[in-house]
Amino acid sequence: MSELLFPRGFRAVTAAASIKKVGRDDLALLVMPDGATAAALFTTNLFCAAPVQLSRQHLKDSRGHASALLLNSGCANAATGSLGASNAIDCVELIANALGVSALSVLVNSTGVIGTQLPMDRIAPLLAPLAKSACEADDAGSLEAYARAIMTTDTRPKMSTRVLQIGDIRIRLSGVAKGAGMIHPNMATMISVVTTDAQLSASELDMLLRDAADKSFHRISVDGDTSTNDSLFAFASGKAGRVDPELLRTALIEVCQELARMIVTDGEGFTRSMSVRVEGARTKEEATTVAKTVAQSLLVRCAVTGGDPNWGRIVAAAGRAGVRFDPSELRLYVGGIEIFAQGQPVVCDAQAVRAAFNGEHVAMILHLGATTGEVGDTNADEFLTSGLTEEYVRLNADYTT
Amino acid sequence: MSELLFPRGFRAVTAAASIKKVGRDDLALLVMPDGATAAALFTTNLFCAAPVQLSRQHLKDSRGHASALLLNSGCANAATGSLGASNAIDCVELIANALGVSALSVLVNSTGVIGTQLPMDRIAPLLAPLAKSACEADDAGSLEAYARAIMTTDTRPKMSTRVLQIGDIRIRLSGVAKGAGMIHPNMATMISVVTTDAQLSASELDMLLRDAADKSFHRISVDGDTSTNDSLFAFASGKAGRVDPELLRTALIEVCQELARMIVTDGEGFTRSMSVRVEGARTKEEATTVAKTVAQSLLVRCAVTGGDPNWGRIVAAAGRAGVRFDPSELRLYVGGIEIFAQGQPVVCDAQAVRAAFNGEHVAMILHLGATTGEVGDTNADEFLTSGLTEEYVRLNADYTT
Repeated sequence: MSELLFPRGFRAVTAAASIKKVGRDDLALLVMPDGATAAALFTTNLFCAAPVQLSRQHLKDSRGHASALLLNSGCANAATGSLGASNAIDCVELIANALGVSALSVLVNSTGVIGTQLPMDRIAPLLAPLAKSACEADDAGSLEAYARAIMTTDTRPKMSTRVLQIGDIRIRLSGVAKGAGMIHPNMATMISVVTTDAQLSASELDMLLRDAADKSFHRISVDGDTSTNDSLFAFASGKAGRVDPELLRTALIEVCQELARMIVTDGEGFTRSMSVRVEGARTKEEATTVAKTVAQSLLVRCAVTGGDPNWGRIVAAAGRAGVRFDPSELRLYVGGIEIFAQGQPVVCDAQAVRAAFNGEHVAMILHLGATTGEVGDTNADEFLTSGLTEEYVRLNADYTT
Repeated sequence: MSELLFPRGFRAVTAAASIKKVGRDDLALLVMPDGATAAALFTTNLFCAAPVQLSRQHLKDSRGHASALLLNSGCANAATGSLGASNAIDCVELIANALGVSALSVLVNSTGVIGTQLPMDRIAPLLAPLAKSACEADDAGSLEAYARAIMTTDTRPKMSTRVLQIGDIRIRLSGVAKGAGMIHPNMATMISVVTTDAQLSASELDMLLRDAADKSFHRISVDGDTSTNDSLFAFASGKAGRVDPELLRTALIEVCQELARMIVTDGEGFTRSMSVRVEGARTKEEATTVAKTVAQSLLVRCAVTGGDPNWGRIVAAAGRAGVRFDPSELRLYVGGIEIFAQGQPVVCDAQAVRAAFNGEHVAMILHLGATTGEVGDTNADEFLTSGLTEEYVRLNADYTT
């Protein structure tokens, strides 16, 4: 099987700077030799990391233009004060100088432990050679090597690609992501980079990206904690030529959804996934609130881990979401089986219910009864998450130690 | 050591109805032979259990008067529809008839699995004899036996008592509680019963109870899930005579706080507790929001379990609380050690920090910097919770199985 590469107009290289562990690539540089339009969504956390603040500013000042993106794993460079800020600036300037481009066109981000400083003595000497090797590279560079270099507690690299043939034009889209922990919808989620060789203006790219994030990264939760470094970047090199941006919408959504699913199914301590779909709400916002509340309930998530058909916890979580609905109108389906309706348990096959809680994926649908039509219910919303496991607790009880 | 008894004017008895397990007392009846004023706070969950709905109505219709309270463990009688409602009514009527009092003066509640029906064939025959034995009892009845009968996954009974000598008058207060899981502040928390022989009007009792709940049960969280059955009952028999209600305020708060602490330290899978105090907020509401967000963060709670000084998670959780503050003004103290200030780590003794995360109790203080005076900071608020443990997940992965 041939290696997955970035689309035309991109060069990706990686290196090992021993930031947290020795011997694995933990620096990833993406270079757009002829530039690219750029868009990004960043974390809403007040403690957004130094590189997030810098990249946000650069993206604004350059009006959505970029020549390079530097990422590292092992250290988030968050809650690191003025030293952290100047370290991020130093990284950008070293890359900009080596590439001979404006610092404004270089973006950065970091992922890993919060509150520690970047080991600049080990990182700085690598940056100019890294930029040089990117310029001299024979091919666009391996998606997998890039995805591996940004991993923290991820157990596997996360990639997704699409190829579209539109008339004579062949457009490629690729995406990589890292996830695993501190995953919660609040703008974007952790670090994802989407690239395409389509020609798009910065505002077209921004619009497509926001829509795709809403339908993917904003609809997953691993643990309810929003990171200090969440960033979703998108770059369009234009090398493949110009097509109607609307033709790319579906492919971009698919790439983002695939990455989002990969993030959930490689979440810390993952054993099985669960989805919560809410229908029949009065408003989309209310559907989102109920779906999110059930998806975040520790007790529901523990029951899913145990394959325990303790569905009372699902309706109890819906009932505390702060959304007004008539409890006697609520219907709960798990794995397609109607379990609860008219305020009481539905007589159903206990063995089938148990099997529905024991599958690879536990699919819950809650119908709030405020609207009747399920087909084309535009107020419906869905969240994807996973069971909460002992392994998650074990991993997070000694993350820095 | 002499057994703890209920105050004068109360009779408590228990019995075994094999509701979930065979051989342990799971019915608890409290009788006020000469009546009592009554107040209660109930869950805000839309799926409030059938007995909660009934008790709320009785308390309203009787204008805060009660003659008896029946509790059971093992089955919550929640999400049980019309059969659940009529079962709760049947329990009340059997008790009312046996005592020769109005059904309106009998309150009930249940705790245990959601979505299953009460085994009325086993419960009903016990109720009249239970009421009879309460009336004939020699003494007020054992607090401990009562507290044990309402336990679900609690590992020990929870009781607190106070005796006040005010002039010639000797007032007794007693409280019992059950907690362990599905604990979150949203009115009251799980089932607690506070009794006193002071003479108080229903509205005085209600006022004192709400204040005490705000300072105790509303400031703890075990898992962020609000139960369908949360109820805090208070009864005043008047047997000891009349004193200024204000003189009871502190003692009642203390009893409730002691019970609340017991609930946290006997939470499912408990190993160590943690408190999050927020000072220097612009408003009390903002302090509450930040304290609650940090106290509920799975990642912070996992770090506490592991004794891992991963304090970056604490500031990250504060930063995503949705409260605006200046990150560079935030100061974080753990175990009294200043760890983070001016947007960056404070140089401090790493071993001392590690020890602060490794104690029986991990005390966090976040100062948001919006106000400077810490003494008498009326906007301060504090939450008490515990580390999230593998044992919690294990217990809740197979609760019904």
